[in-house]
Amino acid sequence: MDKLYVIKIGGNIIDDETKLSLFLKEFANIDGNKILVHGGGKLATKLADQLGIASKYINGRRITDEATIDVVIMVYGGLINKKIVAKLQALQCNAIGLTGADANIIPATKRPVNDIDYGFVGDVAVEELGFANLSLFLMSNLTPIIAPLTHDNKGQMLNTNADTIASSIAIALSILYDVQLIYSFEKSGVLMDVNDENSVIRSITPSSYQDLKSGKKIFEGMLPKLDNAFAALDNGVKKVIIGKAEQLNDMINGNAGTTIVNE
Amino acid sequence: MDKLYVIKIGGNIIDDETKLSLFLKEFANIDGNKILVHGGGKLATKLADQLGIASKYINGRRITDEATIDVVIMVYGGLINKKIVAKLQALQCNAIGLTGADANIIPATKRPVNDIDYGFVGDVAVEELGFANLSLFLMSNLTPIIAPLTHDNKGQMLNTNADTIASSIAIALSILYDVQLIYSFEKSGVLMDVNDENSVIRSITPSSYQDLKSGKKIFEGMLPKLDNAFAALDNGVKKVIIGKAEQLNDMINGNAGTTIVNE
Repeated sequence: MDKLYVIKIGGNIIDDETKLSLFLKEFANIDGNKILVHGGGKLATKLADQLGIASKYINGRRITDEATIDVVIMVYGGLINKKIVAKLQALQCNAIGLTGADANIIPATKRPVNDIDYGFVGDVAVEELGFANLSLFLMSNLTPIIAPLTHDNKGQMLNTNADTIASSIAIALSILYDVQLIYSFEKSGVLMDVNDENSVIRSITPSSYQDLKSGKKIFEGMLPKLDNAFAALDNGVKKVIIGKAEQLNDMINGNAGTTIVNE
Repeated sequence: MDKLYVIKIGGNIIDDETKLSLFLKEFANIDGNKILVHGGGKLATKLADQLGIASKYINGRRITDEATIDVVIMVYGGLINKKIVAKLQALQCNAIGLTGADANIIPATKRPVNDIDYGFVGDVAVEELGFANLSLFLMSNLTPIIAPLTHDNKGQMLNTNADTIASSIAIALSILYDVQLIYSFEKSGVLMDVNDENSVIRSITPSSYQDLKSGKKIFEGMLPKLDNAFAALDNGVKKVIIGKAEQLNDMINGNAGTTIVNE
């Protein structure tokens, strides 16, 4: 099977023009199939503030009301997505910017209201997630750049977690490709000591993960990311790498970041 | 050859939710290949005003400075484009929202500064305009929804006239398809009397156009539109129709609007 890299970048790269440009250069140079999923960054909050739209949070989680969904469509689906696409085109990478609504690549449902109404937030409809159009783009040498937005198939756009989009796509495409899922964030990898960037754990397997957890050696905030990584591996993804976007090449070559494998 | 409809809608439809929904229903029901090109509408000006960005005009033409290009990327490429895509998906039309940068469907160059610096405005690079990716989408039963934005292939997005995008695409795709180009605007067609909506000229040919022009029977503001229409016909487009978006079906069936043909 051909290799496919599904790479997620977050706000720490998106908000920094210099870092973003350097990252995109390395990204454009990756040989073969690749998909970029980007998060939002601070721009949406900044724009909402300028427009006098109050950001609402419940238990630390943002609520996406009607005014806010318009802002995130503009910032994630418009400004950030198209700036990345234009920069990649200049680097001879034939990028195509997409949300989950475009070509219906990511069907979703509005999160049901239980205790909390998160508003226009989407949960990926994993069972409906096909790979037809994404693989069509890849086979035509196009590089999908995906914004963290989906739609409910009833005409409504929905704000959606970029990590979930990345893992859902990686899993769906693992039927056709040998998929490596790369999560970039602000740290160099999973750290033994959260304050020491040199304490990167180079490799984690299911058994070493159990040891690390029972020994409480991993920063608690990392556990959901790692649980997601193992779920992706259990569903067909070959390898998950967690690290700094600035070290993309080294991560791919196995010289940086934390590699998570099911063996 | 298969038929292809390239349809341009302007601000009068985009700014009116009810009209837009009705138009999209008729659009979704068109049998066969179709491409929608949308303009901007008043939302960009409104957002610019809210953000305290002054709209600048020289000789009645808008100047796109650095703050303004960000606003139009957000509004045209984000909000309007994705709302149309989500609504069409709900109507079982597999829409894919694109700017000229996406899959490099519309290469352009920044308008050179002569007397006036229009700022980040793009002129379509017609000689570089291919049809490969647009036809790939059409052949995969996807319906491209194109925002009036292009890129300079050096990483910069550019504000671009939607009428020009529509005619450029129609011409480029006339190699593969029997193309009908439909321009919708606020009038029912080309009018003999600009104040009488019932005075639609049903058909214009090159010779009748000369008569109408020499008799000064056409409203002067229509002449550039008609010149563009004949240029499209001279370059491979089969038929140009000008009329009201609310009468899309009737225009296609020859029961409304002004049909411009080269015979």
